[in-house]
Amino acid sequence: MLTYNFTNTGSDSLYAYLYKCIKNDILQGKLKAGEKLPSKRSFAKNLGISVITVENAYGQLMAEGYIYSFPKKGFFVSDLNHSGVQKQPVDMNKVVLTGGANAYTADFTSNQTDHHVFPFSIWTKAMREVINENQTQLMRNPPCGGIMELRQSISRYLSEFRGMQVKPEQIIIGAGTEYLYGLIIQLMGSQVVYGVENPGYPKIAKIYKSMQVACEYIDIDEEGVPAKALVEKKIDVMHLSPSHHFPTGIVMPISRRYELLGWASREKGRYIIEDDYDSELRLLGRPIPTLQSIDVSDKVIYMNTFTKTLCSTVRISYMVLPADLTEKFYQNLSFYSCTVSNFEQYTLARFMENGNFEKHINRLRNYYQNKRDEILSAFRREPLGSYLTIMEEGAGVHFLMHVDCEKEEDEIVREARAKGIKLMPLSKYYYGNEVKYPNTYVMNYSSIETEKLKKAVTALGQIIRGVKESKK
Amino acid sequence: MLTYNFTNTGSDSLYAYLYKCIKNDILQGKLKAGEKLPSKRSFAKNLGISVITVENAYGQLMAEGYIYSFPKKGFFVSDLNHSGVQKQPVDMNKVVLTGGANAYTADFTSNQTDHHVFPFSIWTKAMREVINENQTQLMRNPPCGGIMELRQSISRYLSEFRGMQVKPEQIIIGAGTEYLYGLIIQLMGSQVVYGVENPGYPKIAKIYKSMQVACEYIDIDEEGVPAKALVEKKIDVMHLSPSHHFPTGIVMPISRRYELLGWASREKGRYIIEDDYDSELRLLGRPIPTLQSIDVSDKVIYMNTFTKTLCSTVRISYMVLPADLTEKFYQNLSFYSCTVSNFEQYTLARFMENGNFEKHINRLRNYYQNKRDEILSAFRREPLGSYLTIMEEGAGVHFLMHVDCEKEEDEIVREARAKGIKLMPLSKYYYGNEVKYPNTYVMNYSSIETEKLKKAVTALGQIIRGVKESKK
Repeated sequence: MLTYNFTNTGSDSLYAYLYKCIKNDILQGKLKAGEKLPSKRSFAKNLGISVITVENAYGQLMAEGYIYSFPKKGFFVSDLNHSGVQKQPVDMNKVVLTGGANAYTADFTSNQTDHHVFPFSIWTKAMREVINENQTQLMRNPPCGGIMELRQSISRYLSEFRGMQVKPEQIIIGAGTEYLYGLIIQLMGSQVVYGVENPGYPKIAKIYKSMQVACEYIDIDEEGVPAKALVEKKIDVMHLSPSHHFPTGIVMPISRRYELLGWASREKGRYIIEDDYDSELRLLGRPIPTLQSIDVSDKVIYMNTFTKTLCSTVRISYMVLPADLTEKFYQNLSFYSCTVSNFEQYTLARFMENGNFEKHINRLRNYYQNKRDEILSAFRREPLGSYLTIMEEGAGVHFLMHVDCEKEEDEIVREARAKGIKLMPLSKYYYGNEVKYPNTYVMNYSSIETEKLKKAVTALGQIIRGVKESKK
Repeated sequence: MLTYNFTNTGSDSLYAYLYKCIKNDILQGKLKAGEKLPSKRSFAKNLGISVITVENAYGQLMAEGYIYSFPKKGFFVSDLNHSGVQKQPVDMNKVVLTGGANAYTADFTSNQTDHHVFPFSIWTKAMREVINENQTQLMRNPPCGGIMELRQSISRYLSEFRGMQVKPEQIIIGAGTEYLYGLIIQLMGSQVVYGVENPGYPKIAKIYKSMQVACEYIDIDEEGVPAKALVEKKIDVMHLSPSHHFPTGIVMPISRRYELLGWASREKGRYIIEDDYDSELRLLGRPIPTLQSIDVSDKVIYMNTFTKTLCSTVRISYMVLPADLTEKFYQNLSFYSCTVSNFEQYTLARFMENGNFEKHINRLRNYYQNKRDEILSAFRREPLGSYLTIMEEGAGVHFLMHVDCEKEEDEIVREARAKGIKLMPLSKYYYGNEVKYPNTYVMNYSSIETEKLKKAVTALGQIIRGVKESKK
């Protein structure tokens, strides 16, 4: 009869050990398909263990299909019909990871939030209160568009600060705007032609392509995208950043806004996605009113995010759908679970309701204004200053910097990278061959550590001025 | 000259008020396109305000494009080319919201987590520690697949508890499995035919359809999906729940597992998605080993979630990609930001590392075992008991309940709903016309409040036994 030695069972229980022994023998072919196993009673007696132990081991082997039973006849080994090949370990050497550790002295391409500016203690307090007071609600599955408390807070915020009258039901919350674009594509269907601004935020086109829908680049002029080009390229849904175009910084004038709203209203399936990604961070004058607020034909999908105003690593964004699309959303897509954790939704709602969000934005604006001034004055100082022209520094957390020197753009980027400075040329945001605005850089400064600024400016100065580093 | 009254500026600053007055006059056509505005100096003098105030108002109007300037000539009203229609408020009456408030005495269709079982204090402690100790890391954008600390914790967990040897780089974290399915579709491309189990978890097919990719239903037999049917329907990627089929509870036997792995290995583009959604909650015996752990040809995409083990409203799921798809993922999809907040990723990593997750799962298993026993004994008690047959109660947080009575399924569901009990018939999980297993219900018990159980059982008994409620 089959026998096993129980002296080295390790941390396993007797039944688990017996299960593993038998399974192993089946996998290695020592026990053949169809072979009859000992009866529970005689096996137990033979091994000196209880019948229950054998029963449990047989039960687990049955559950996994290694053995089967015939009533009154006993237990038999199944036909596994497998090759017995051993699993090979995976070779991960080819895999390139992105993101994570920040090895740069100054990374002017990152949208990361400076940890000095995140309101850790107020945020933690709001979360603690939520966890103490709302345990039942925290466990309750939210509607697909997000918890009503947060949507109401956002609705009030949009009314007070952006002059927009929208119902909480029109607001759909999601884990980042990238995710919300995916929902829009599912809402619109795959036969639609999407337009993106050229130059523009490159991720939008990447998402459309990854989702395999048609996407056309529309060249902007000095006022933004012209309606004529949308007609020519047969665009159905146009992505715009009218309050602060990325990366050029253009504010779309009101006449162009009406022109584009007119374009959208002339055909049934036309929509504009208004990406208002950093309107809160306008550092000069009042915020620019939204396209949504002057849209009378319900053609604008408004999109905004807390990744700029709170931090890039808390993933909460939202979109405001026009009435017809709101209805379609609930009909077609309400089976989706909301992608943002209830804990963070309730915390943000509380943070907004008790006025902390408004205070935080004011603090943020001051902080970035000072940071920008500090960075700009470091860049403008001689001898580097006379090589540089700074543009579009009045809004958001980036400005444009033109470098007047004989080195090529690629050379400057490469040399800067070697010295721990990451730069992104404006030309890289253009799709197509024609290089516009050479030697101009899009300078994101949100994550720059001012303590390392002097070092970065000195290094950049040496590169641009062509000075050899003295080695001693 | 143009003039305004500054006695009722409300909470506006002088410049904001002036800006609004002029903008209003332009929008209402009182100031016509091309009309010249007063010079800053004379306008200021006339209104009795400072030149700076006029300058700021003009600046904002210029930024928004309501006016333009010609050097040395002054400021002029832009041609807005708009119709002047007023925005209509949105009619939201037609919009039906789903989710949110729970109005049922007993909802046997909900996967919500009972708030008694969520480890609020331990979770909060872990989050507090993370916020105190990791502020810099919390602000750092994670790799697209999630923070390495959490992926390492998951890798160790899979090794210890599921016998799976996977590298952290193969693990991709996302805000719910629904989101991860979207990534898989983008990874595979739109030419692929997806297979889903019939019956099965209905959301999977909904996602495939919403994303407009081909999706076929594969009928299961008593061991699960047969390989032959996959060949016939030309499936490329098959979704399976082998450890615990939803909703029938079938555990796929080892022979069928090898048969399906064989199917996958015979053609290059074939893959299996192994949905291991509730393997941690097996209440009888040991957990069933995964398909991934016996897959030698790297054909299994393993998918699991913390929405069952932690709670349904913290949206953290993950998938384990085979080597070739891992490489493709980093090449094609690494531009996406991870959809889970850093705060919750770091908290979960800490929760797993200090052993709390393991303890929590053991507690959870005991809790659900007791809860299930309490619910089943209430159902089995006479007079209701003799009408019911309970099946598949050994795993997960649902069981099957067959009702032996003359009433039709629809009638029982309707009458139960009227009494505050939500039931889901097994037949509803089948695609197609043939009704299998009539009068059998899939009973999710995770969110049932045991205090309300007696009331629910009495009401259900009256419906099933056809007893009229006595009214006095």
